[in-house]
Amino acid sequence: MTDNDTTVANLRQRVAEFVAARDWEQFHTPRNLSVAIAVEAAELMEHFPWLTNEQAAVAMRDEMKQAAVADELADVLIYGLSLANALSMDVSTTVLSKLERNEQRFPTEEWRGRARGVGDAGSRTAG
Amino acid sequence: MTDNDTTVANLRQRVAEFVAARDWEQFHTPRNLSVAIAVEAAELMEHFPWLTNEQAAVAMRDEMKQAAVADELADVLIYGLSLANALSMDVSTTVLSKLERNEQRFPTEEWRGRARGVGDAGSRTAG
Amino acid sequence: MTDNDTTVANLRQRVAEFVAARDWEQFHTPRNLSVAIAVEAAELMEHFPWLTNEQAAVAMRDEMKQAAVADELADVLIYGLSLANALSMDVSTTVLSKLERNEQRFPTEEWRGRARGVGDAGSRTAG
Amino acid sequence: MTDNDTTVANLRQRVAEFVAARDWEQFHTPRNLSVAIAVEAAELMEHFPWLTNEQAAVAMRDEMKQAAVADELADVLIYGLSLANALSMDVSTTVLSKLERNEQRFPTEEWRGRARGVGDAGSRTAG
Repeated sequence: MTDNDTTVANLRQRVAEFVAARDWEQFHTPRNLSVAIAVEAAELMEHFPWLTNEQAAVAMRDEMKQAAVADELADVLIYGLSLANALSMDVSTTVLSKLERNEQRFPTEEWRGRARGVGDAGSRTAG
Repeated sequence: MTDNDTTVANLRQRVAEFVAARDWEQFHTPRNLSVAIAVEAAELMEHFPWLTNEQAAVAMRDEMKQAAVADELADVLIYGLSLANALSMDVSTTVLSKLERNEQRFPTEEWRGRARGVGDAGSRTAG
Repeated sequence: MTDNDTTVANLRQRVAEFVAARDWEQFHTPRNLSVAIAVEAAELMEHFPWLTNEQAAVAMRDEMKQAAVADELADVLIYGLSLANALSMDVSTTVLSKLERNEQRFPTEEWRGRARGVGDAGSRTAG
Repeated sequence: MTDNDTTVANLRQRVAEFVAARDWEQFHTPRNLSVAIAVEAAELMEHFPWLTNEQAAVAMRDEMKQAAVADELADVLIYGLSLANALSMDVSTTVLSKLERNEQRFPTEEWRGRARGVGDAGSRTAG
């Protein structure tokens, strides 16, 4: 099963089964899961400790290091899907609707090739 | 489009188009995306600031608050999918393989209803 | 040397010497240090993975676990002091001025015994 | 009061008074404070969203931006000092002892001018 033939519901279902088989729903509360996601996100960052963007890019051409990063990302996504399960939230609907709003907030003509700088507050959740 | 009829590849494709239309691949490096995921994860945690698990659970029954949390989770997932794109990583394969390894590490008979406690180091990435 | 006879400048000086002896100022940029602080903060959180506030409180009565948490907090503070050094920022002035502003924002009559709840946006940096 | 004439105990005392005046000790549990520190650390990172290290360095020469970063760092430190209060931990002793251990782990001859790279696991808490 690859991304081409796996629905988001398939992945969510597998995560839900893993959690249910251990009776872990009691621990997978939204609050706890938000902490778990943040902890895994930090482990992801930890792979790029003191590197410049260039050094990090070079490191990512190493297959083993790339696999290690992919593995941490999987943890982030697993907890993220478990939170979607806990909230009975449709991931696809929410993600697509967020992307549409971001398209309004960041018109291509204005933002092409441009990133937010230090102190560009207010536009917190975009690229 | 809901989770039942959306493949992971569909979602990834939409994120990739959003990024490409703004020529933002240059900013969406693995290092930068790991920071972006961590920032969004913190915004997720921020919804449960000083609450007990019980108070957080009550709050999640409020539809508006639940929608706000879902919205932050969408941000985490969008950056996560963008990182998968940057790494050319198959999300489904990696997530399913991680779940299989976690099934080995956390046999149901031993872990049912049991969570890791303070100082249970070594088992960092499981429920 | 204990907190009673150690000035903030003493601690900062020791951190600066540690960094300079390794020629690590080049890595201790504000951006890198902000990531390092976040990583250490996550390791701090990781000590309370799936516990209720009550269970976490019980665990903190265990001297060894308390020492482990103190050790992680030291890491957060070391990087924090290094960032103060990198910014030539006076910690005491900034902390005391922030506390004064928070005293205005959170008058005791109004906030005694009361915490922010889910969705109380706008008051992000207070207790 | 500046860092030269402020003891760590002075700062801790001011934080303790702020918390006690609002009867907030009940919220300032180790678990909650670890989350609060992580949230503030993320707000610190958010000041350097998509910048290279060079761009971030340039931004830090802008006095207003530097003040904004100092302000976020103050939040991290305030919660850190509150956690030290909650744990009855002596900050100076713990920080100095941690620096001594790091001096053993990172001998200057071996580590001068050298940072950890991607995948240098095991040396998680050092520069």
